[in-house]
Amino acid sequence: MSEVIDILKDLISRRSVTPEDAGCQQMMADYLKESGFNIESMVFEDTTNMWARKGSEGPVFCFAGHTDVVPSGPTEQWHTPPFEPTEINGYLHGRGTADMKGSLAAMLVATKRFVAKYPNHKGSIAFLITSDEEGPFINGTTRVIDTLEARNEKITWALVGEPSSTHKVGDVIKNGRRGSLSGDLVVKGVQGHVAYPHLAKNPVHIAAPALAELSQIQWDKGNDYFPPTSFQISNVNAGTGATNVVPGEMHVQFNFRYSTEVTAEILVERVHSILDAHGLEYSLDWTYNGLPFLTDEGLLVEAAVKAIEDTTHTKPELLTTGGTSDGRFIAPTGAQVVELGPVNATIHKINECVKIEDIELLTDMYEKILINLLAND
Amino acid sequence: MSEVIDILKDLISRRSVTPEDAGCQQMMADYLKESGFNIESMVFEDTTNMWARKGSEGPVFCFAGHTDVVPSGPTEQWHTPPFEPTEINGYLHGRGTADMKGSLAAMLVATKRFVAKYPNHKGSIAFLITSDEEGPFINGTTRVIDTLEARNEKITWALVGEPSSTHKVGDVIKNGRRGSLSGDLVVKGVQGHVAYPHLAKNPVHIAAPALAELSQIQWDKGNDYFPPTSFQISNVNAGTGATNVVPGEMHVQFNFRYSTEVTAEILVERVHSILDAHGLEYSLDWTYNGLPFLTDEGLLVEAAVKAIEDTTHTKPELLTTGGTSDGRFIAPTGAQVVELGPVNATIHKINECVKIEDIELLTDMYEKILINLLAND
Repeated sequence: MSEVIDILKDLISRRSVTPEDAGCQQMMADYLKESGFNIESMVFEDTTNMWARKGSEGPVFCFAGHTDVVPSGPTEQWHTPPFEPTEINGYLHGRGTADMKGSLAAMLVATKRFVAKYPNHKGSIAFLITSDEEGPFINGTTRVIDTLEARNEKITWALVGEPSSTHKVGDVIKNGRRGSLSGDLVVKGVQGHVAYPHLAKNPVHIAAPALAELSQIQWDKGNDYFPPTSFQISNVNAGTGATNVVPGEMHVQFNFRYSTEVTAEILVERVHSILDAHGLEYSLDWTYNGLPFLTDEGLLVEAAVKAIEDTTHTKPELLTTGGTSDGRFIAPTGAQVVELGPVNATIHKINECVKIEDIELLTDMYEKILINLLAND
Repeated sequence: MSEVIDILKDLISRRSVTPEDAGCQQMMADYLKESGFNIESMVFEDTTNMWARKGSEGPVFCFAGHTDVVPSGPTEQWHTPPFEPTEINGYLHGRGTADMKGSLAAMLVATKRFVAKYPNHKGSIAFLITSDEEGPFINGTTRVIDTLEARNEKITWALVGEPSSTHKVGDVIKNGRRGSLSGDLVVKGVQGHVAYPHLAKNPVHIAAPALAELSQIQWDKGNDYFPPTSFQISNVNAGTGATNVVPGEMHVQFNFRYSTEVTAEILVERVHSILDAHGLEYSLDWTYNGLPFLTDEGLLVEAAVKAIEDTTHTKPELLTTGGTSDGRFIAPTGAQVVELGPVNATIHKINECVKIEDIELLTDMYEKILINLLAND
């Protein structure tokens, strides 16, 4: 059995459900110390974070990731115990195998190999690891970045180990992410009895045309790197449950995933102008989940593309689709950011698993990226 | 203290929350027996009903009503204990004073007085009383009517004691009711992650334009007796609660209160054609709560209007507004039906109460109606 799979199994067997770290970072720290890393543990509230760095010069290449995993869901629906790593036909099963302990194991082994070959490499190598990526992301990467910024410690290139791949490892690099903006809308009416509609004001009747308009708008057409901005209503609720009562309020929650063709400010203004044009009386609370970011060219993208081509002899696609990641907290510092990790088909699901060969390939890719960026010839 | 208020106090002190009767009907039966009534108790499942009749000839005048009351709600919000009749400044307070134990007491005393004056009156007098008017109305008036119909026992005129009055007793006679039709709609979509909208199909987005259209339709303009048909959405619900999940289904409950200018069949067909025109995939369950009915002229309306004019020297308004009543089960047999009872300002509310003088006046009105219809000169 290979070292990277042994490490992965060790990580899987630790029940690090958000915000628990369950000793994962201590194990990683012990491993990195042997390659000469300096370790800083940064505990904020319930969240355990690690900043590990080898070298004091720039440029700084940083592996970014998280040790926490989402809950297993109903254990009885799993074919294997979720926190007991189990090999079946070339796949390793267990919660976190794909998101993203497989990447963490590959980062560790790739780093060890690279440092062994290039002990006097250029710049620095760093690890930014959190136990709060799947949770409220308040005390995780964002606070480590705050700490680094406060002491003017900069990341040049960040590789986030999120499972970016679709069909086979390395087929997709995420070189950016859409912005995420959420709205919590309460449309006000007047509650009453359905038999006396003139005494009531039905918020669902008032809101429906506005929601219809919001649902049908083309916010932008996207661009070379981003799909069009998408508006989705996630929850609606009105009514007392009784069938003879006109509700007094309608609650609507919605979310934008937006491209770099618009800004959060533009979206907020357009939504308000539509609600106002329909004469709604309402309150609306906004949550700014993250700005869009894009690393459209530069040494990091080049190094990653070349590493994949040299490993699998296929050219990766550069995409910005999918959910948010902690890259959104790193990119605003000026860092180049990409995401590269295993196939994401089973993440957050029952029977999460990863192809063992893919983790070996991912280790090779990570090592080649380090070589492409930091090897001294 | 007058006899009618004594009887009303007795009824209020019985906690006959639907479907409980708490002995109210037995008390009424004992009272009516003294005037020569024949009593039939009809118990169906959890519901107690009474059919009392004096005389075997037609025409049959029937007082219809219910002994059950709605729950008191939070007792600590009442100024007086809800099931202890309490006089304050000329008003009697207690759950059921207005809806509709005041009417029951007035019916009893009016009947006793009438029978004393006209022992050989024309036709018959009947009482149709249930303990399930405020509840699911499955085992109440509708089943008594079924029983009477099965033996071809007909009601000519029914006076339902529902609190029809708005400002002072007798200002409004309800001479009909709108129909009530409910729909339970489930609009189908495909659940997914807000970050991958192309893999999901948002049922709220699909439904919103259809709901907007349904909310804005003028179904009819009403007529001399009925206000325009009204469509009201009572409940909407979609979403898992999570803000990053596109819901798989949207649930919508709505209700029509409809005039005699349309039929339930027309409304059902129009709703389906609108949903279909919007391309919705959906299921829709209909509940037919009651057909509209109208007693626009005839001896009963004349007798009631004249009785009110002779009592209060004002002319009542004939209206069909407001909620449903058990009259909808009696009217389809061919009976003329009106509703006449106390002021409805406090019904179903905390601190329900009735003006004591109004119950005395109502007793006079009921007695005069009996005289107008059944006195032998």
